[in-house]
Amino acid sequence: MEQRVSFITLAVTDLGASRRFYVDGLGWEPEFEDPEEVLMFRAGPLTVLSLWDRAHFEAEVGAPAQAGPGVVPITLSHNVHEREQVDGVLADARAAGSPVVSDGEEREWGGYTGYFADPDGFRWEIAWNPGPVGQLVLPPVGNTT
Amino acid sequence: MEQRVSFITLAVTDLGASRRFYVDGLGWEPEFEDPEEVLMFRAGPLTVLSLWDRAHFEAEVGAPAQAGPGVVPITLSHNVHEREQVDGVLADARAAGSPVVSDGEEREWGGYTGYFADPDGFRWEIAWNPGPVGQLVLPPVGNTT
Repeated sequence: MEQRVSFITLAVTDLGASRRFYVDGLGWEPEFEDPEEVLMFRAGPLTVLSLWDRAHFEAEVGAPAQAGPGVVPITLSHNVHEREQVDGVLADARAAGSPVVSDGEEREWGGYTGYFADPDGFRWEIAWNPGPVGQLVLPPVGNTT
Repeated sequence: MEQRVSFITLAVTDLGASRRFYVDGLGWEPEFEDPEEVLMFRAGPLTVLSLWDRAHFEAEVGAPAQAGPGVVPITLSHNVHEREQVDGVLADARAAGSPVVSDGEEREWGGYTGYFADPDGFRWEIAWNPGPVGQLVLPPVGNTT
């Protein structure tokens, strides 16, 4: 098996709310959408982020664990070129209606990051990571993906 | 906020078990690792998959919801060029020690996919998707990322 992630699929409870947040709020452009089932975005050169209606997810993959208190045990990060951009993206997420936005923090590994939640509580980390692995994920300046 | 995922981070309970599955079992090569905390893999041109020790995840992001019965409400897909490759990758996952492997199935949207679970139960979908969005995520034949 090659080491490659193609689609990242998140089970969502209300596709309309997801659309208002990602499309209307953050300004993302769908690659494909079916209002009854799924909303897909390009999220990298060979990567698609797919928001899939929870009922459809459940029918194919199985019933998700009850959310209860606590976060889903994954995060997605969005890395930026400059430290200063972290606070700006967190502010954009707040303006787009994110229900939970943290302040940026210095991290012991040398970066600066903060988190926001999307309408389903999935955590995005906005990260400035000046280390070697952090540099791997940055597109050329001026490219958006 | 540009529409871009940089890191996909999964909270894992036993990094040694993760390493045995992904490195020893599937043959993946770490990009970075700290045996006490994290194991990272390149997973696309600008994408890193990070397996992060659950205690560290919890200290920074918050306590994950109890797993209980049911799956984590996300999947990662690994798309392949040819329909016939799906069953082969599922067999590789079984040989690598995946605790749950489904058979491939025809999907109503025209593809053929099956799922396996990693040691923490995170679901990977192995997918042949001949549609336009499916083609977007495929590397040139011969490239592994």
